[in-house]
Amino acid sequence: MIDDHAEQELVAGGGLLHRRALLTGGALSAAGVLIAARAAIGVRSPASMRVPGAPLSVGGHPGSGEAIRWIVPELAFPGSGSSRTPLERLQGTITPNGLHFERHHNGVPAIDSATHELLVHGLVRQPLLFRYEDLLRYPRHTRTLFIECSGNSGTIAAPEPVQANAGQLNGLLSCAEWTGVRLSTLLDEAGVAPAARWIQAEGADAAAMTRSIPLSICLDDAMIALFQNGEPLRAAQGFPMRLLLPGIEGNASVKWLRRLKLLRAPAFSREETAKYTDLLATGRAEMFSLRMGVKSIILRPSFGLDLRAPGYREIDGLAWSGRGRIRKVEVSADGGASWAEAALDTPALPQALTGFRIPWRWSGGPATLMSRATDETGAVQPMRTAWIGKYSAGQGYHSNAVQSWGVDPHGGIAHVYA
Amino acid sequence: MIDDHAEQELVAGGGLLHRRALLTGGALSAAGVLIAARAAIGVRSPASMRVPGAPLSVGGHPGSGEAIRWIVPELAFPGSGSSRTPLERLQGTITPNGLHFERHHNGVPAIDSATHELLVHGLVRQPLLFRYEDLLRYPRHTRTLFIECSGNSGTIAAPEPVQANAGQLNGLLSCAEWTGVRLSTLLDEAGVAPAARWIQAEGADAAAMTRSIPLSICLDDAMIALFQNGEPLRAAQGFPMRLLLPGIEGNASVKWLRRLKLLRAPAFSREETAKYTDLLATGRAEMFSLRMGVKSIILRPSFGLDLRAPGYREIDGLAWSGRGRIRKVEVSADGGASWAEAALDTPALPQALTGFRIPWRWSGGPATLMSRATDETGAVQPMRTAWIGKYSAGQGYHSNAVQSWGVDPHGGIAHVYA
Repeated sequence: MIDDHAEQELVAGGGLLHRRALLTGGALSAAGVLIAARAAIGVRSPASMRVPGAPLSVGGHPGSGEAIRWIVPELAFPGSGSSRTPLERLQGTITPNGLHFERHHNGVPAIDSATHELLVHGLVRQPLLFRYEDLLRYPRHTRTLFIECSGNSGTIAAPEPVQANAGQLNGLLSCAEWTGVRLSTLLDEAGVAPAARWIQAEGADAAAMTRSIPLSICLDDAMIALFQNGEPLRAAQGFPMRLLLPGIEGNASVKWLRRLKLLRAPAFSREETAKYTDLLATGRAEMFSLRMGVKSIILRPSFGLDLRAPGYREIDGLAWSGRGRIRKVEVSADGGASWAEAALDTPALPQALTGFRIPWRWSGGPATLMSRATDETGAVQPMRTAWIGKYSAGQGYHSNAVQSWGVDPHGGIAHVYA
Repeated sequence: MIDDHAEQELVAGGGLLHRRALLTGGALSAAGVLIAARAAIGVRSPASMRVPGAPLSVGGHPGSGEAIRWIVPELAFPGSGSSRTPLERLQGTITPNGLHFERHHNGVPAIDSATHELLVHGLVRQPLLFRYEDLLRYPRHTRTLFIECSGNSGTIAAPEPVQANAGQLNGLLSCAEWTGVRLSTLLDEAGVAPAARWIQAEGADAAAMTRSIPLSICLDDAMIALFQNGEPLRAAQGFPMRLLLPGIEGNASVKWLRRLKLLRAPAFSREETAKYTDLLATGRAEMFSLRMGVKSIILRPSFGLDLRAPGYREIDGLAWSGRGRIRKVEVSADGGASWAEAALDTPALPQALTGFRIPWRWSGGPATLMSRATDETGAVQPMRTAWIGKYSAGQGYHSNAVQSWGVDPHGGIAHVYA
């Protein structure tokens, strides 16, 4: 029972306890969690035991407590906008298909898999067309991968912290088990010409979403995804097929994929010139900054999930990196003055979400909670001031800065800059 | 391109190729898969690119190709029956929540999480009651785990092979990422008396589903699951809380959990005496044979997914063991005369489904496909005749025997005993 040893277990300021400390016995009962058993409870059966329950169904029913996505339509551009994963309402790392974030530029097309074709052409030995049925015959490849929009968490660049919950701020982020065909297999068949260095990918939506991707990424771990968490892709996720680039900004994993053209140089499409470039403080812009940085967010507690009473609880959240596995997550409860290492959920897969958690004793005083991730390449999540300083004012793409939740003495939680 | 080296790559009879052989180029084009590109395809945009697509939604829409479960009601017992995961329609290892199998004994109760209570009593220092809100404050634990009904694949005991698809025969099997609280944490708080050896778990459904579980399992890796693939449990999966016993027959992972009573000996409830016992050939019965054996099934090709033409394809399926990780899966295309080792998808997690795959060149002649798994303890999946020989006629619980698909010269596939 941790209350017997609380002083020894403190590992950082603000009440952070060792990551392997257990919140049992006195620690939680001190906060009024446990109730002495009533003598009769074992024999008094609840109403649910006195009548038969509901019948079976072919497709299941969502639970009453099911979370829903938060929609951010772009009113000036019909069909453009996003829906965001309610991260603070979910546990674990797999996002159910109905809650995976969406970001469309001209709505969700309805595509018939029987007539859809994927063309591989340009600097190849032989241009090839692949039907959906063709791809189903290829060796399949399965990986658990996050997708993050490069605009995710972009409000961190706002002058004042936007007051919204963790999913609204960071929910252009989801993770699923994807199955498909390695892109390198299809490129080997088409025969990549020696001069080819880039691939232009085009979607069959009305935005004709087009992105250029270095050939090296396409030959490494890129896949043509056909299934998401077991099911055929849903229309909103690119049915019948989408590009999937592990660790790369989501926009480049082109949905409704219809064309891959091998080129000597990038196509410089609208989506990689007018958008998705990072204007630096120097006035120059970074283009093709495709790989997502190392990042973490605290989900609980967070804005909208105010604390009811002082005492022991867990701080938990998610960490990820486009460059591989998460090696370490540190948490601070005193605004960065001191840090303690959180426990990581296993397995910590490359380019997938990884859960972290650490016990915390909230004294009832003000606290500022932060998390800071390090990936297997040694890259460390930057503090907000360092991140902001690199860019022109308001630049919000590829934000991986440390985020902070401020806790007031009443348990209220605000998004703060610290 | 494998056709250049096909003879060298053969590793077992009936056309099995080395697990790392790639089905590219000539191998697939020889089967008519590839089409020379038409000159105009790159510029002729499909209809989906000419009008904006559908708008965003809060909860998503299933795809048109979405699989549904197969329902097997027990007509004599209203509320009793099962729905089965359509395994041969899914890819990867995660089962979407709406397609997770269900097995109810008196329907699905509607339980209010605000009033539901979990009682821990019997041979404990202090009986304790836990509300849902209480459990949400405990340290959370996440694991990807299969659940398999002990009656799964039980038709293998029938005198003649039942002709049904892989999900209908074996779909009382699913796998999800579960999050909850370790049962050992709650037992530590209640204080287990030295005399306690078993725990009786009771559900709040109208069947009052009751099972006895050895204390050693409960103190090892058992959890009280609250979330499934991120979401709060659905009603059909035990909302607000269920027991979850990794690798143990599904029936013991009691849904709608309301009571855990510590006992000296098993309760010998209806569900562990009249049912879920294994009648041996000797006339004696095995009771509490709780841990599921090492097992595998071939999903593609399988009954209902007939082959259209000879040529190269993948054989793929799933393997799992209640005792830990899968170490090896062997595949035979000649009815067990010769075997070749399949490739395993990674990560191969303990008590979780693991994908396997191997390239196969079907000559167009008759073939008999089998898979045989070995787990990290060295246990090997038994052949059907050996498994059948152990039990009394018709005993179908805990079936982990090798299953066989027969391929006829027209590509038709039947369930066969071989």
